Amino acid sequence: IVKYLSFLIHCRIMRPDDANIAGNVHGGTILKMIEEAGAIISTRHCNSQSGEPCVAALARVERTDFLSPMCIGDVANVSAEITYTSKHSVEVQVNVLSENILTGAKRMTNRATLWYVPLSLKNVDKVLEVPPIQYAWKELEEEGRKRYEEQKLERLVTKERNGDIIFPVINPEPYTVGCSQSSLIHLVGPSDCTLHGFVHGGVTMKLMDEVAGIVAARHCKTNVVTASVDAINFHEKIKKGCVITISGRMTFTSNKSMEIEVFVDADPFVDEPKERYRAVSAFFTYVSLSKEGKPLPVPQLVVESEDEKRRFEDGKGRYLQTKAKRQVQMQPLTQQ
Amino acid sequence: IVKYLSFLIHCRIMRPDDANIAGNVHGGTILKMIEEAGAIISTRHCNSQSGEPCVAALARVERTDFLSPMCIGDVANVSAEITYTSKHSVEVQVNVLSENILTGAKRMTNRATLWYVPLSLKNVDKVLEVPPIQYAWKELEEEGRKRYEEQKLERLVTKERNGDIIFPVINPEPYTVGCSQSSLIHLVGPSDCTLHGFVHGGVTMKLMDEVAGIVAARHCKTNVVTASVDAINFHEKIKKGCVITISGRMTFTSNKSMEIEVFVDADPFVDEPKERYRAVSAFFTYVSLSKEGKPLPVPQLVVESEDEKRRFEDGKGRYLQTKAKRQVQMQPLTQQ
Amino acid sequence: IVKYLSFLIHCRIMRPDDANIAGNVHGGTILKMIEEAGAIISTRHCNSQSGEPCVAALARVERTDFLSPMCIGDVANVSAEITYTSKHSVEVQVNVLSENILTGAKRMTNRATLWYVPLSLKNVDKVLEVPPIQYAWKELEEEGRKRYEEQKLERLVTKERNGDIIFPVINPEPYTVGCSQSSLIHLVGPSDCTLHGFVHGGVTMKLMDEVAGIVAARHCKTNVVTASVDAINFHEKIKKGCVITISGRMTFTSNKSMEIEVFVDADPFVDEPKERYRAVSAFFTYVSLSKEGKPLPVPQLVVESEDEKRRFEDGKGRYLQTKAKRQVQMQPLTQQ
Repeated sequence: IVKYLSFLIHCRIMRPDDANIAGNVHGGTILKMIEEAGAIISTRHCNSQSGEPCVAALARVERTDFLSPMCIGDVANVSAEITYTSKHSVEVQVNVLSENILTGAKRMTNRATLWYVPLSLKNVDKVLEVPPIQYAWKELEEEGRKRYEEQKLERLVTKERNGDIIFPVINPEPYTVGCSQSSLIHLVGPSDCTLHGFVHGGVTMKLMDEVAGIVAARHCKTNVVTASVDAINFHEKIKKGCVITISGRMTFTSNKSMEIEVFVDADPFVDEPKERYRAVSAFFTYVSLSKEGKPLPVPQLVVESEDEKRRFEDGKGRYLQTKAKRQVQMQPLTQQ
Repeated sequence: IVKYLSFLIHCRIMRPDDANIAGNVHGGTILKMIEEAGAIISTRHCNSQSGEPCVAALARVERTDFLSPMCIGDVANVSAEITYTSKHSVEVQVNVLSENILTGAKRMTNRATLWYVPLSLKNVDKVLEVPPIQYAWKELEEEGRKRYEEQKLERLVTKERNGDIIFPVINPEPYTVGCSQSSLIHLVGPSDCTLHGFVHGGVTMKLMDEVAGIVAARHCKTNVVTASVDAINFHEKIKKGCVITISGRMTFTSNKSMEIEVFVDADPFVDEPKERYRAVSAFFTYVSLSKEGKPLPVPQLVVESEDEKRRFEDGKGRYLQTKAKRQVQMQPLTQQ
Repeated sequence: IVKYLSFLIHCRIMRPDDANIAGNVHGGTILKMIEEAGAIISTRHCNSQSGEPCVAALARVERTDFLSPMCIGDVANVSAEITYTSKHSVEVQVNVLSENILTGAKRMTNRATLWYVPLSLKNVDKVLEVPPIQYAWKELEEEGRKRYEEQKLERLVTKERNGDIIFPVINPEPYTVGCSQSSLIHLVGPSDCTLHGFVHGGVTMKLMDEVAGIVAARHCKTNVVTASVDAINFHEKIKKGCVITISGRMTFTSNKSMEIEVFVDADPFVDEPKERYRAVSAFFTYVSLSKEGKPLPVPQLVVESEDEKRRFEDGKGRYLQTKAKRQVQMQPLTQQ
């Protein structure tokens, strides 16, 4: 029974609306599937002991890389597993494989880690306790506790960076930040929401990826795909009936990648006399692909203001840090 | 007025998301349209006499054959007619024609029979009375009563077969049952539901066909289409907020067709402290098509366990029975 | 702050399901985006002063021309601005640009004017007061008042023309009205509705365009696109749970255009013991396009009954009037 509760497999065929014109499935579609699987398995787990019914709400998604493309007609195989539980949160590991149904070939697309918090169904402000899971080895619990402490720290840090607003630019120069920045509005409807009447984290991430994709395509005018998404913290809930504005601007370009910062602002203008607020923000990395699917060089971003220069340097820092981490991970074990 | 209440015509253009990569509209899309038309005409009829307002819920769909393919850009012409009413149920006949809008050519795609039961809008457990319809000939009423008695009997029978569960298989051999079995999870949202807050039968059937299609494509790795669906009984309602797991496994292959058994299990884990339960099950028959739309030979299913062998024989029985019935129907009238 | 409240920019990528087989985005998809932007900006404005919360409901859309085609993969740039406010209504101007993301080329697609009325969130029958806007010049207010008075008059006039019903025709002759007339049913679900539980005007317009497109394609059997939509008045609200029937018939053909009349009838059969009623009606103009996107000659409509002849003449009147207006607008300023 415990095994059944903590594991979940799911598959779905990718449809034309899940993909861009080149047939590559949007990163946002995949993020939405990942979050759905995570929400289902953690909600099921948190309700597995009799007690107050609850819904698991997404608190954080760790950095995710898109390892290989998925195409229209492929079957996405999604598996989710609960890998750690603290008193009030659940860590879920979700893996996505793309399966070419005509050849049977499967490839790993994503390996994502998500954190959920169980909120009482009757009182959304009440966080409930999470039933503990059994670990196969004691080490697994130790490592989980380490990951839990790390993400807790990072969540505190990002709470600070929240003030920025994106203003429209009249007649921007080519390859400047103003030239590619974009925004999208969305009226939150019932099918976007959980049983609590708050937006699913996956819906928000899909819209964020949509804006990031428009920014990237406007900058390099080619077929673009999501390469990775930095860790995202979901500090503020967004209620049904809100209008959300999702804005994106380019912050950094390397030779073959673009970093786009995306903000989500919620405007609860009808339901409550509350101010517009920043609900989420994140960094998306995009690459530009040739018709054969090879990465193309990216036109360099032209930074103008002091703020833009500072953000470019920050982006460069994140880029180099990720690169360094990846090289460490690829070194043979003997050198560690 | 009576004519107007008991007849309904509807058309809709088929979109890319309604179809597979080869451009063939999914059987599930067509089943969903059929059920929508049936639900509307029977709900309208059951509310036609002043009294307690109600919503008609799908109780059963009779076996349906897919007679010819429908493609993206075609117009689906759906017509529905009430053909029999008992004290508490309504029989609806739905016909679907596909219309090539560029040539004007129309072809019969489906001819389906559905049974609905009116449930009070205020109390979903209360079955209301159905206003009687007028029959053009007394024989029509007699034949309807016969069909009504037959389906009532069959509904009792299928209530029994419900226990099976599909387990994941590690490293399955090619063409075995474990190799193609698939499952899909779906969180029931508001747009899946009727005014009562229960899943539309058509939504369930569309998801069932989606899983069956993945099983069939995984088995024969070609373009596959739904050929027929066996009678489906909807014994158990599924409530908004449930997670449903739709699982499919291959049970039988003939030279040119595959039979897939599909189960729907509902997990009402949040709303009520209720156990996971089997809501629906059905057999789908699929064929594999060449690029020219001709049926291809199907790789034979490799059965291993005793259960698989038994299910294969049962499937063969259904296959032969259907084949025999079809030959009787095609004999000239003089021989009957 | 005022500037922020009265201006809104938005972009969205066009997907395969937004378009027909030839890749042209449906006029209805664009009308829906326009109405969403209008609803958001006017709802935001009407809630900008503390007071009773409200939702802005669409009362009228002025005649809209589709100036250039939009294709799958294009980015639709939607901007909305409040251009006039009366005591109880808001005029919104929405512009749509299509952007070819691979070349950066932008073209004006639509320039639409919509009127909204703020309805109390708690009592949908209560019309609230609209906060006044600031005008850059006094002339802008004067012109706005003129437009306000004009549309008020027109709304009274169209309230009359409402009785017509479309009946099915058995074996119609080619190119007759009966040959191409079409209808579509839709069960109003939660995602079609505002916070009040009434259908969004944009959802209705999208369905109307869908039916008009089927009528046009059935008549001329080629790729057809929306050329313009006459002013539409939204007199009657449509509630969640209703079934709506959208019917269309051709009324007039010129050498290169077709006029289609579309009716929306709502059937609130479950919720209230209310009669079926006419909620909206409108005239859509369609053109037929060659593979190169050039307008093709249209087969002439064959009118049979006296009613059809009268409607043809009325349509011709509208056609000539629009043509005359357009010629005036295109004259050089010196001749005015």
